Amino acid sequence: MSLDGVYDDNNPFALILAGKIPSIKLYEDAHTLAFLDIQPQSKGHSLVISKWSRARNILEIEDEALAQVMATVKKVANATCKALAPDGIHVAQFNGAPAGQTVFHLHVHIVPRWEGGPLGFSAHAQGNVVDAAALTALADEIRAQF
Amino acid sequence: MSLDGVYDDNNPFALILAGKIPSIKLYEDAHTLAFLDIQPQSKGHSLVISKWSRARNILEIEDEALAQVMATVKKVANATCKALAPDGIHVAQFNGAPAGQTVFHLHVHIVPRWEGGPLGFSAHAQGNVVDAAALTALADEIRAQF
Repeated sequence: MSLDGVYDDNNPFALILAGKIPSIKLYEDAHTLAFLDIQPQSKGHSLVISKWSRARNILEIEDEALAQVMATVKKVANATCKALAPDGIHVAQFNGAPAGQTVFHLHVHIVPRWEGGPLGFSAHAQGNVVDAAALTALADEIRAQF
Repeated sequence: MSLDGVYDDNNPFALILAGKIPSIKLYEDAHTLAFLDIQPQSKGHSLVISKWSRARNILEIEDEALAQVMATVKKVANATCKALAPDGIHVAQFNGAPAGQTVFHLHVHIVPRWEGGPLGFSAHAQGNVVDAAALTALADEIRAQF
């Protein structure tokens, strides 16, 4: 089934971890990296990944890597709330292309939500790519809250 | 903000854990419980909760409880894939009423997805309540795969 497959060493998040393509970092520790999504579904939409696990999805990730990723998700969610004061937060993780996964290195989405904004989480209908300068300024706001 | 508040000892999931209202269980260990959502967004939609944490959301959950919950999410996702062979899996966790949270005991949704089915995860537009007998039969299928 479409959840099967092999880890691709050239997927975009592997390239970010290898320093071959840039990212706008929010937080980093020995095991995890958090950075802004460049096609945000809302202001402050970020992603958390493991630095060492080669898991493509939830089915195959090591328990330890998953625990590390989720501890960082919690940290980033708290910093995002302090910086941007959303009314809610969606945490989402997609597995398999038919579920909207486009990068096959496990990642968790953190999407701030505001009263009156969209309620659903759209897996495929990504937002527009946002200007890097605007994202960098936003990242500064969030980073100040860790 | 709406993410603030106090844990309500009479929320539905606290009552499930106290044995005061029933649930259709998929998996249980010392720290976590997985059961079928009675208003599924797809066949096999289930929820995982901590048995001991009184966290309402991702902002306040203990790292240990979160790690336990996510290890169970992984187990349930794998068993669901073996039982139902979906093309993908959505994992989602909502925080705050404006993000679609209706029960304020942290819970993680596991939603199987099939090619051609819905792509978005709707926080508010829940499905219809499904017949308990049908859910029980489905739970038997999934339980057989742990």
